[in-house]
Amino acid sequence: MMNIQFADRMNNVHKSFIREILKATVNPEVISFAGGLPNPASFPVEAVQEATQKVLNDDGSSVLQYSTTEGYLPLRQYIAERYLKKKGIIIDPYEILITSGSQQGLDLIGKVLLNKNDDIILEEPGYLGAIQALSIFEPKFHTVPLRDDGVDINSLKEVLNKCNPKLFYAVPNFQNPSGITYTAQNREGVANILKNTDTIFVEDDPYGELRFIGEHVPPMKTYLGDNVILLGSFSKIVAPGMRLGWICAKREIMEKLIIAKQASDLHTNYFSQRIVYQYLVDNDIDNHIKKITELYREQRNCMVSMIEKYFPKEVKSTKPEGGMFLWATLPEGFSALELFDIASKQNVAFVPGDPFYITKKGINTMRLNYTNSTEEKIEEGIKRLSAAINQLIK
Amino acid sequence: MMNIQFADRMNNVHKSFIREILKATVNPEVISFAGGLPNPASFPVEAVQEATQKVLNDDGSSVLQYSTTEGYLPLRQYIAERYLKKKGIIIDPYEILITSGSQQGLDLIGKVLLNKNDDIILEEPGYLGAIQALSIFEPKFHTVPLRDDGVDINSLKEVLNKCNPKLFYAVPNFQNPSGITYTAQNREGVANILKNTDTIFVEDDPYGELRFIGEHVPPMKTYLGDNVILLGSFSKIVAPGMRLGWICAKREIMEKLIIAKQASDLHTNYFSQRIVYQYLVDNDIDNHIKKITELYREQRNCMVSMIEKYFPKEVKSTKPEGGMFLWATLPEGFSALELFDIASKQNVAFVPGDPFYITKKGINTMRLNYTNSTEEKIEEGIKRLSAAINQLIK
Repeated sequence: MMNIQFADRMNNVHKSFIREILKATVNPEVISFAGGLPNPASFPVEAVQEATQKVLNDDGSSVLQYSTTEGYLPLRQYIAERYLKKKGIIIDPYEILITSGSQQGLDLIGKVLLNKNDDIILEEPGYLGAIQALSIFEPKFHTVPLRDDGVDINSLKEVLNKCNPKLFYAVPNFQNPSGITYTAQNREGVANILKNTDTIFVEDDPYGELRFIGEHVPPMKTYLGDNVILLGSFSKIVAPGMRLGWICAKREIMEKLIIAKQASDLHTNYFSQRIVYQYLVDNDIDNHIKKITELYREQRNCMVSMIEKYFPKEVKSTKPEGGMFLWATLPEGFSALELFDIASKQNVAFVPGDPFYITKKGINTMRLNYTNSTEEKIEEGIKRLSAAINQLIK
Repeated sequence: MMNIQFADRMNNVHKSFIREILKATVNPEVISFAGGLPNPASFPVEAVQEATQKVLNDDGSSVLQYSTTEGYLPLRQYIAERYLKKKGIIIDPYEILITSGSQQGLDLIGKVLLNKNDDIILEEPGYLGAIQALSIFEPKFHTVPLRDDGVDINSLKEVLNKCNPKLFYAVPNFQNPSGITYTAQNREGVANILKNTDTIFVEDDPYGELRFIGEHVPPMKTYLGDNVILLGSFSKIVAPGMRLGWICAKREIMEKLIIAKQASDLHTNYFSQRIVYQYLVDNDIDNHIKKITELYREQRNCMVSMIEKYFPKEVKSTKPEGGMFLWATLPEGFSALELFDIASKQNVAFVPGDPFYITKKGINTMRLNYTNSTEEKIEEGIKRLSAAINQLIK
């Protein structure tokens, strides 16, 4: 019998706890706020069908051939133009790399930047996919807590006083899991602290376009320029099954990212790149995004008002202005994991905060997704969850 | 100005030399045998169009949603059934993971198995994509030379006498770059040496179905069972732009591969998985493969006969029974890189052997691709190349 010695790095990485939870929600009786899926009603099925016909009719076999590691240039030009139009930031298409979802961006960033035990900063709570992807490279994690307006500035200063982190990974818009968006003032504060350091700000922005209340806030790249690596994705505004995201980084870093991408999978699915590009030029994407945000606003409003109606007053929760998640906090000392067990028996599911924290235990927070349930389900689910909470805390 | 410290691993990995060469062949006057592309005439454009319509009509938005890390189960079942039917090997669909091309399989294998300085074995010459992907994990490379019948058995024994390699990566069918196929006897010899070791045989088989002369030889997995990780790909039998490959590995390894895949890009493009599956069940893939091999046999026959007609007798070359490449050897002491420079001026290109060797320099071998040129181009290209060879060696 062969004796297999796995790589040390695999000791740090585990199966997504969320994916394990999702298995518990397959039962159709369960109302699940646990997932993180966009609402499939928002997927442009017919337009994708038309775009596919068009690229196959016009360019036939060439859309099925191998392609360049960097990605389809017109698609990268489209992304650059949209950044200029929507955010007022200038990005050279040659500083954009198309990736297999923005998750792959995290893997490539880890590959090119991280040695074992390098210091890096994450938000707490932080995005689970980033914790997973970066753990592979065995860095030393430091965390800065999130407050309602963004990063806790003093904590960030403290981390930077004691070490020289390679990067700070964050989701400044409608963060996953908390739904929090950094205010302009908070962004400026973070930028002022980082701008004379060697710490690269990795700005992950999958939800930025999904704002349904309030005004867009400038990206961190506006404040920090080339010291930012910016990640984007078509998963939330077109369709996630296509696995299309991108990284923007200055040339010096981009050269390394391209080498790492080539070693990782040669290039991103070219067929999908061509289809999504065709879809983008043939359709009014702003109008499409407007439809998505209107849909999500209704779902968010419903969950917020049901929480106000049913949840015990001791439970606090955010009122997100965009994105897909709402964040609720039980009174101090209560465990969201325990609540999960009680709630499961009442056929309602959510994600306990625990996997989003790197070191803390006994977490009293939880993530609720509202984009994948009807208003009826949201009302019934929040009722059940309230009953579970009352059972736990009273 | 920020000071960026890249990860140490990036010192070992370079841009593909071949991709750099390909840039020199953009000039339409150049006849290029340098590429490694399947012939696009073989891509099933209309059938892919029909399959796309069908999955979007039948399953609408669900084919555009996020999906499982493991890959679409019916596609994995199809792959398992085909292994049983074509090769007589039993593989459980739960021991198959769908990857973004088999190149990603290499990245995942490196992730789960390789610590820095772990010993591994490669063929010499070896597949460049594997050298790139595995270099990221900073192993200690050992090489075993290839002979006409496969691996040099004594060299393999020598390597295993001096260390305990984690894996032996090889392409036993129509190897890239050499076109060599291991005989059944050679496979048995390799298996006998490996079977009581802890060395995993990584059997990469992208070209196995492209045999146009002679009989199929049993896969290494037949001899070594669970000690093999088997890689496969739809790139050469359906279309490479879809980036669909797979890894077969026993459960113990598969569990780790799934975690690494999740961290790397969540899952492979689901839209393409559904389309390719639909294509496979609605079409006669064996008949399609027959058309590809007939096309490639004509192209191979043309190149072989032109070489016989024009090349100086001092140059030796293989007569591949399948796959996409032919391997030529200049007389001892002559450099294929020098020949490349002379040939470029005559508007003909190939890949000098150098990048396929890990340590050797002054290489006198070269890779010629025949699947991407018409018979007229092959004749004219071989004529030009012969003139260049004569200029070099005479």
